[in-house]
Amino acid sequence: MDPEAFRRLGHELIDWIADYRQGIADRPVMAQVEPGDIKLRIPATPPLEAESLDDLFGEIERDFMPGLSHWQHPRFFGYFPANAPLESVLGDYLSTGLGVLGLSWQASPALTELEEVTADWVRQMVGLSARWRGVIQDTASTATLVALICARERATGYSLAGGGLQAEPCPLVVYASAQAHSSVEKAALLAGFGRANLRWIETDAAFALRPEALAAAIAADAARGLAPCAVVATTGTTASTALDPIAAISAIAREHDVSLHVDAAMAGSAMILPECRWMWDGVEDADSLVINAHKWLGAAFDCSLSYMRDPEHLVRVMSTNPSYLQSGVDDRVANLRDWGIPLGRRFRALKLWLLIRANGVAGLQARLRRDLANARWLAEQVERTPNWRLLAPVPLQTLCLRHEPPGISDEDLDRHTLAWCDRINRSGAAYLTPAILDGRWMVRVSIGAPPTERADVAALWEQIMAAAAESIDA
Amino acid sequence: MDPEAFRRLGHELIDWIADYRQGIADRPVMAQVEPGDIKLRIPATPPLEAESLDDLFGEIERDFMPGLSHWQHPRFFGYFPANAPLESVLGDYLSTGLGVLGLSWQASPALTELEEVTADWVRQMVGLSARWRGVIQDTASTATLVALICARERATGYSLAGGGLQAEPCPLVVYASAQAHSSVEKAALLAGFGRANLRWIETDAAFALRPEALAAAIAADAARGLAPCAVVATTGTTASTALDPIAAISAIAREHDVSLHVDAAMAGSAMILPECRWMWDGVEDADSLVINAHKWLGAAFDCSLSYMRDPEHLVRVMSTNPSYLQSGVDDRVANLRDWGIPLGRRFRALKLWLLIRANGVAGLQARLRRDLANARWLAEQVERTPNWRLLAPVPLQTLCLRHEPPGISDEDLDRHTLAWCDRINRSGAAYLTPAILDGRWMVRVSIGAPPTERADVAALWEQIMAAAAESIDA
Repeated sequence: MDPEAFRRLGHELIDWIADYRQGIADRPVMAQVEPGDIKLRIPATPPLEAESLDDLFGEIERDFMPGLSHWQHPRFFGYFPANAPLESVLGDYLSTGLGVLGLSWQASPALTELEEVTADWVRQMVGLSARWRGVIQDTASTATLVALICARERATGYSLAGGGLQAEPCPLVVYASAQAHSSVEKAALLAGFGRANLRWIETDAAFALRPEALAAAIAADAARGLAPCAVVATTGTTASTALDPIAAISAIAREHDVSLHVDAAMAGSAMILPECRWMWDGVEDADSLVINAHKWLGAAFDCSLSYMRDPEHLVRVMSTNPSYLQSGVDDRVANLRDWGIPLGRRFRALKLWLLIRANGVAGLQARLRRDLANARWLAEQVERTPNWRLLAPVPLQTLCLRHEPPGISDEDLDRHTLAWCDRINRSGAAYLTPAILDGRWMVRVSIGAPPTERADVAALWEQIMAAAAESIDA
Repeated sequence: MDPEAFRRLGHELIDWIADYRQGIADRPVMAQVEPGDIKLRIPATPPLEAESLDDLFGEIERDFMPGLSHWQHPRFFGYFPANAPLESVLGDYLSTGLGVLGLSWQASPALTELEEVTADWVRQMVGLSARWRGVIQDTASTATLVALICARERATGYSLAGGGLQAEPCPLVVYASAQAHSSVEKAALLAGFGRANLRWIETDAAFALRPEALAAAIAADAARGLAPCAVVATTGTTASTALDPIAAISAIAREHDVSLHVDAAMAGSAMILPECRWMWDGVEDADSLVINAHKWLGAAFDCSLSYMRDPEHLVRVMSTNPSYLQSGVDDRVANLRDWGIPLGRRFRALKLWLLIRANGVAGLQARLRRDLANARWLAEQVERTPNWRLLAPVPLQTLCLRHEPPGISDEDLDRHTLAWCDRINRSGAAYLTPAILDGRWMVRVSIGAPPTERADVAALWEQIMAAAAESIDA
């Protein structure tokens, strides 16, 4: 496609995306299709000859839009806020349009240096000390895998340089809360620890890791001749945004010489609010830390900020240095390929840079405070309404709630919960994700899309009460 | 940023990117800055208040452009073609603007289904049988890590479900050619095999893996009581696009019940040309395969196609299934989070879909054939010019060349090679990457950016000869 054709279609695209965002509230939030519906609309074989793109947006509207759930919708309350505000979208457009790669500093110096600076901006915004160095990963799954591999290598004196994990005389053990994200288990399994060497530590009434239980588990393993290796603590768990007590955990980790990784993928964004920083008190003593700037903060996916206290250790584990990647300045620059798994690297810092510049720290803070207030407001409605219950504290923007009609059996309650949630999702009026907490289904309301205002939350509450009533009647 | 402001800046952006691509040939190819230069132009602290973006493109031109090496430049001959043609850029713009995520099929069905269909389009385009299922990963580094972890788990009967790699009685061994990409070593180390259990198999005069040497290494390890686990064969090595003999390797792998992963990150694109498919003869017997559609083929980075012969095995290794990700249709759909490491997933198929539609298979074939002819033409010039030498066969679009003045010592030759290459890069006239082959520096010429025509290659050859002469005189 030549630049003139790009100009034509590109202008159309900008208008189409602007219109899409402007009118997004009128669309059903959740996709209204069955498995395979979309596939039927796409030819099963690739075109031999070039096709006209003159009706591109008509096709997309017709063939794909029914199959999309709209994550940027003001009444998207599912999973987590995966915010892609339009200033960050523009930053990503710049990146893709420039089409430069950062295999090494020399391959595009500005790419590496802006990534270093913007990661440092966020470090300052969340109140971390200057001892931390940051880099952008694709997701927290990757950041956590990298952190656990680094912990494995620290605990084994760099076994990868010798016999690898295969040569270790006694099994290394990983610890996390029973409420930790599924990516923690996945990372530990992929890193080779083995499920038998993972410990899911019990949580308290607020679903936060109980430090006494962690200390006891570590002591028991050590007594059995195992090697406690790493703890993953979470600031803002997935189900209920529970806050593991980082200070107590880090004291235990230090005592047993165990690495500490903090998964602040969700709640890390809130740390730009000084009034929230008590939530990760003790974080300065962790070894690594992940904050998903592509969640609530609003960098278009993917943009997962990974901070390290000892980047030299990270580089020693991750680095390869083939001749075709060497350059004359390697001793004076960061080669970010050595800070994670992929070699190739987009210019992802641009979207973070534009996000922060277009809003200012104060603007981002104001948006997050609005969301916190909306969550508190909804929590008050739930608490004051008979037969409705909040199942966990609401420190941030996620509510865990359930409608509990008197006398209902446990099985019927699960069915009822899933039914009213499904009723809302299918109606297209809002999108919520159910999850299991304490062995029973509940419904998560995750607030924090940029266009979500109090009126959207109030409307949601009406819809929730109506759906629960209809579900009882049905 | 509201949609109206996005519209304003977005139109400006489209024109700016179109102008950038239109005028790219007039820019110096390689960034002309020293370490730290760009950082000095960016404030060290984030802005507290929102900043105006009215002069956004002026700022970018002034502050960042001097720090970019232009990968889309017609005289970019470095590393590999990381093509981002403008139709693919538009596909990525759609993805980012829509801002939808594919955590599960249900989270945005069209995202998953278009990814399945476009991966299957490419499968057909490269002539693989219908036994292969494909998915998009970020990079080949990740695809190879995933493949080696799958091999590890197959060889151990799913050790991750028990004691992990830590419980294996005898070390598992990984084999690859001495010319394999650095990501193979990195993946094997991260997966916990340990450097002591990696075997770099010697290559022949064409830098292709010698199958007899592989067979001997496997037999020797087995005789010592080690467990041969996986072979990585490469179709198109990084230094010289050497072609490991897949059929012979796969016969050895089958005989010893060892998994075979084919790294066709670079040369996989060429397999859309039937006349090139002899290069990976035997590929049907591999277990996994990676083709970087974000290289020569032209999907904007990142878009690494990973094909599996047995996706059930992959899913068994990669899957986690927490309640907050479950949906009622999970038994009828692919949840692509279980096909790799990250949980979050952009709508990356759009850029591949637009690339293929806008060009047709025939259009993509014509572009690749043009590049092959340009490489052959340059190879002829090198071969017929005194004191110039091609150091490896040229099956594809990469040439390995050296200027060897009579009587020069080995050390002086290395200095001379790096000097004339650096002279070209600093001049801004073209960008080449040097690499070591057979223990000595040579210069790689990687041809294949969409705007690169014969005239660009001819100009490059003049510049190369002039730079070598000047370097001798200097």
